[in-house]
Amino acid sequence: MRVSRLILATLRDVPADAEIISHQLLLRAGFIKRVTSGIYAYMPLMWRVLQKITSIVQQEMDAKGSLQTLLPQLHPAELWKKSGRWKGYTEGEGIMFNLKDRQNREFGLAPTHEEVITTIANEVLLSYKQLPVNIYQIQTKFRDEIRPRFGLMRSREFIMKDAYSFHSNEGDLKSTYNEMNDAYKRIFSRCGLETVAVEADSGAIGGAASQEFMVTANSGEDLILLSSDGVYSANQEKAISIASKAIPLKSKDRKEIKTPGDSSIKELCNSQNVEPSQIVKVLLFLAITQNGDKQPILISLRGDQELNEIKLINTLTQIIGQDIIDISQISVDKLKSENIETLPFGYIGPDLSDSVIKTAKSWKKKFLRLADHTAAELSNFICGANKKDTHRIAFDWESIGGLPKAVDIRKAKAGDHCVHDVNQILHDKRGIEVGHIFQLGCKYSDALGASFTNEEGAQKSFWMGCYGIGISRLAQAAVEQNNDEFGIIWPITIAPYEVIIVIANIKDPDQKSLGEELYKKLLIEGIDVLLDDRDERAGIKFKDADLIGIPWRVVVGRDAAAAQVELIERSSKSKNILEVDTALEKLLKEISEKKKFSTPLNL
Amino acid sequence: MRVSRLILATLRDVPADAEIISHQLLLRAGFIKRVTSGIYAYMPLMWRVLQKITSIVQQEMDAKGSLQTLLPQLHPAELWKKSGRWKGYTEGEGIMFNLKDRQNREFGLAPTHEEVITTIANEVLLSYKQLPVNIYQIQTKFRDEIRPRFGLMRSREFIMKDAYSFHSNEGDLKSTYNEMNDAYKRIFSRCGLETVAVEADSGAIGGAASQEFMVTANSGEDLILLSSDGVYSANQEKAISIASKAIPLKSKDRKEIKTPGDSSIKELCNSQNVEPSQIVKVLLFLAITQNGDKQPILISLRGDQELNEIKLINTLTQIIGQDIIDISQISVDKLKSENIETLPFGYIGPDLSDSVIKTAKSWKKKFLRLADHTAAELSNFICGANKKDTHRIAFDWESIGGLPKAVDIRKAKAGDHCVHDVNQILHDKRGIEVGHIFQLGCKYSDALGASFTNEEGAQKSFWMGCYGIGISRLAQAAVEQNNDEFGIIWPITIAPYEVIIVIANIKDPDQKSLGEELYKKLLIEGIDVLLDDRDERAGIKFKDADLIGIPWRVVVGRDAAAAQVELIERSSKSKNILEVDTALEKLLKEISEKKKFSTPLNL
Repeated sequence: MRVSRLILATLRDVPADAEIISHQLLLRAGFIKRVTSGIYAYMPLMWRVLQKITSIVQQEMDAKGSLQTLLPQLHPAELWKKSGRWKGYTEGEGIMFNLKDRQNREFGLAPTHEEVITTIANEVLLSYKQLPVNIYQIQTKFRDEIRPRFGLMRSREFIMKDAYSFHSNEGDLKSTYNEMNDAYKRIFSRCGLETVAVEADSGAIGGAASQEFMVTANSGEDLILLSSDGVYSANQEKAISIASKAIPLKSKDRKEIKTPGDSSIKELCNSQNVEPSQIVKVLLFLAITQNGDKQPILISLRGDQELNEIKLINTLTQIIGQDIIDISQISVDKLKSENIETLPFGYIGPDLSDSVIKTAKSWKKKFLRLADHTAAELSNFICGANKKDTHRIAFDWESIGGLPKAVDIRKAKAGDHCVHDVNQILHDKRGIEVGHIFQLGCKYSDALGASFTNEEGAQKSFWMGCYGIGISRLAQAAVEQNNDEFGIIWPITIAPYEVIIVIANIKDPDQKSLGEELYKKLLIEGIDVLLDDRDERAGIKFKDADLIGIPWRVVVGRDAAAAQVELIERSSKSKNILEVDTALEKLLKEISEKKKFSTPLNL
Repeated sequence: MRVSRLILATLRDVPADAEIISHQLLLRAGFIKRVTSGIYAYMPLMWRVLQKITSIVQQEMDAKGSLQTLLPQLHPAELWKKSGRWKGYTEGEGIMFNLKDRQNREFGLAPTHEEVITTIANEVLLSYKQLPVNIYQIQTKFRDEIRPRFGLMRSREFIMKDAYSFHSNEGDLKSTYNEMNDAYKRIFSRCGLETVAVEADSGAIGGAASQEFMVTANSGEDLILLSSDGVYSANQEKAISIASKAIPLKSKDRKEIKTPGDSSIKELCNSQNVEPSQIVKVLLFLAITQNGDKQPILISLRGDQELNEIKLINTLTQIIGQDIIDISQISVDKLKSENIETLPFGYIGPDLSDSVIKTAKSWKKKFLRLADHTAAELSNFICGANKKDTHRIAFDWESIGGLPKAVDIRKAKAGDHCVHDVNQILHDKRGIEVGHIFQLGCKYSDALGASFTNEEGAQKSFWMGCYGIGISRLAQAAVEQNNDEFGIIWPITIAPYEVIIVIANIKDPDQKSLGEELYKKLLIEGIDVLLDDRDERAGIKFKDADLIGIPWRVVVGRDAAAAQVELIERSSKSKNILEVDTALEKLLKEISEKKKFSTPLNL
């Protein structure tokens, strides 16, 4: 392709609304164009990157016997009501765009496809003899993000590969889950990315076990915790650990203390000369369940620990036995609108009386009380006295009415000890989630009544797995992981073009003819090559070549008359002046070296 | 691919709601699954067909230098309001699904992309030096069809290839338009389809000239008119012709006649012994314009001619100078709701007084009067007398208050004479529209303020073209054109697989090993091959192979021990018993013969 025909429109300035480097670079290099908040057009260079990723994904999925399909994007509400997810996806977090058609029937714009594929599977998969089956598609999906940002990282339209597998038993599901794990590792490695596989929360998708694949990058939205021995790695949302020991509180003098203005842990520690790990802090939340119950929650945490909201939601789902549509902290405004008198925030203790919420209009009248294990384990602590400017010191659980239900709802963090080996310490990295695989179990097949006839002739629900890769997000994550001050450095397997030939001065006939000759040779060799034939200054062309991140640059300049060219590797910036034939040979060798991945034949 | 792993689920019975053969066959052969009205899942076999079509389209578009992109599906309403199409697409015909996001901002689900691409072009194409540019994408589009039917023919989600070109002048646009015409002819021919290119109405897309590509098939929704000499072909919506001459009315006795109950042309002809071409019939319409005006229209047609509503809309747009959002016949109910007394339908003459609508609540109080040329040319005719059971005979235009504006608003039809050569007669065929190319001119660039700097340094609006192919519709049209009593007959270039090997008895070791051996050989040769390894009766496997339409079937049966197989061509049903090596050789030769299309290198 000739650069003159490429609609290349690079920008000198960093776009104002782009916070992270990959977003800035994709905009500056003209790979994407913003149409509106969270919605982008993929320009020709970007399209080629997406196609290369797609093709790697297809090869690896096909090699595992997964069958490609294309499912609809508009989903009738009935299917989502049947699975019980309509309300949560439209009213709860509200991340599913939805509309009514001309007949006033409700539809959702699909963020995921369990409902549709399970319904179809039930129609076409009748017998255990047809199982297992693994089906995938690559398609634009939609999410009405609360805060779209970071370009393609958290956009409202994005390209996903999603696969769904159907099995006659759990063992078979696990075997496909492991196959997909292998395929994913090959996919990310073939895309030239460094990734970490981590234990993950299954979120709104649900199911028994799940694993995320993270591209490591400092700007990543996710915090990953890893053990030094490499045995354990998990998303902080899911991670478990052993917290550092609390420092024992010396005072045994049980009493109320006046702590005016010390409503935060930090202020309290300063004024009383105590440690955060000696304090039991209290958080008040309101949980809304699927059937509309509004349950006030009173959470006790050790002062040096933080609440993990994901763990809290999972715990509440289990205890209450219903899906939780929303949780939020109880604020002064919320109290007011429920006709409840304000509470002594900052001074609340684990034993705050239920009578304070007895006037509530729509809430349950009793707190659900939970304590994180680290708080529950304290035997001599400081806590709020349930009145303003007052705490209690040297109290234990018995003296404040007993221990609430003890659960794991704190955030694991760097410095914690590992559960698998207490001598191992967790450290953290930031990551960008690019893949997620789930063992769904029978959650969707049960809900949607999707079953097959087993060997004994009985109807059984399918065991299911699902497997996602964010194709467009992966493309941007590759940029986040591979860039320098000059621009993008595409891994060669997903680069829009492998080589760019820059004719330094297009008016010089020697340069022009040598450039064109090399261009044709590379095309014939099947190399994806760009020819910068623009009538621009050489410096501008070099800058553009660096910015758009083509792995190899060949400059046809003053030495063209002597049949010499300059060969530059984008990543290392190493330069060699070579005879044109030597350059061609070196280029072909380097590219085939870097691309040599076998594609298994799918017999 | 092994049939045992293919989720093949064929149906014996014709699905109740499928009216045309291609829809029935795609459902019966398991290529598509209905999710809800007008919304289908593409199953693995169908996906392969779509991929093969896509790949042919990509090759031919790339060969013409068109650049592939992917544009968003969710479009902010502002862009469509700017182009003036929001109202027409959401409130008028209402074919654009639309929704509000969590911030209450309006979005449409794109049925077409002029607004988005023109806005982007304005950002990235600054100078005439960058022109021409041709950009395409292949993507799911949406239309909230009034009556979804015929499977993928008129569905609510469908796959389109749409391309948009930008030019500095009209000549350059025409040259790309012709290039696209060439590309389209190659695409449809490579897909193995018989198509006709016809002049077409540009509809809601607009622009100066447009041409449709029709797959000929008896069930086609469109009527095509063709001249016997092959010079002229047009969609009936657009077609012009010379109507057969009217038979002169003999009576010169100008008078009112009593015609009780003769409110139709047929009844009137019978009772008065006159010819339809001697009558001026009147139709009353109501047109709603973009700014909300409701204009009553009085149309005079020659009794043997029919109204072409598309021509009427185009004529009204020109005369009124506004886009027409809706036209509909004036009914008794409509009159009532406007507070107008009922009219003598069946007896209305061209001179019906405006005073009959003077009480209208929201309509304009004066008819816009139009006469088709065929009616305008009559000099001695019969027409309604504007009172029940009464007509007038032997009247001329002068005697009924003068000739209204004469326009071409009738349907051309088979038997009419051609405009280019009066000796040529039009005949008709039915067709399925699979492609449409448009010269848009500056309609969208003017509306959206999209311009470039020309050679003189002045800002000029882009000249634009747009070029569509219905990928999913084309796939079904191929089935409509290629089938027999046994099922689908895929053209080999778009068949999901080229060959199916049927092992007649999977329990026979000779058959099994010969089948497997041949399967591997074909895979190595790069042939798309299916191996029917199911433990089913041979008859069932033969029926399935015919139904799913694989071009070549190799049966490995009783003669396997003697290394003989049966080779069957799906289209002709011709059978040959051959040595396995001869069969392989013949197969490879036949397939490469049928597939030999060159793919131009895009230098």
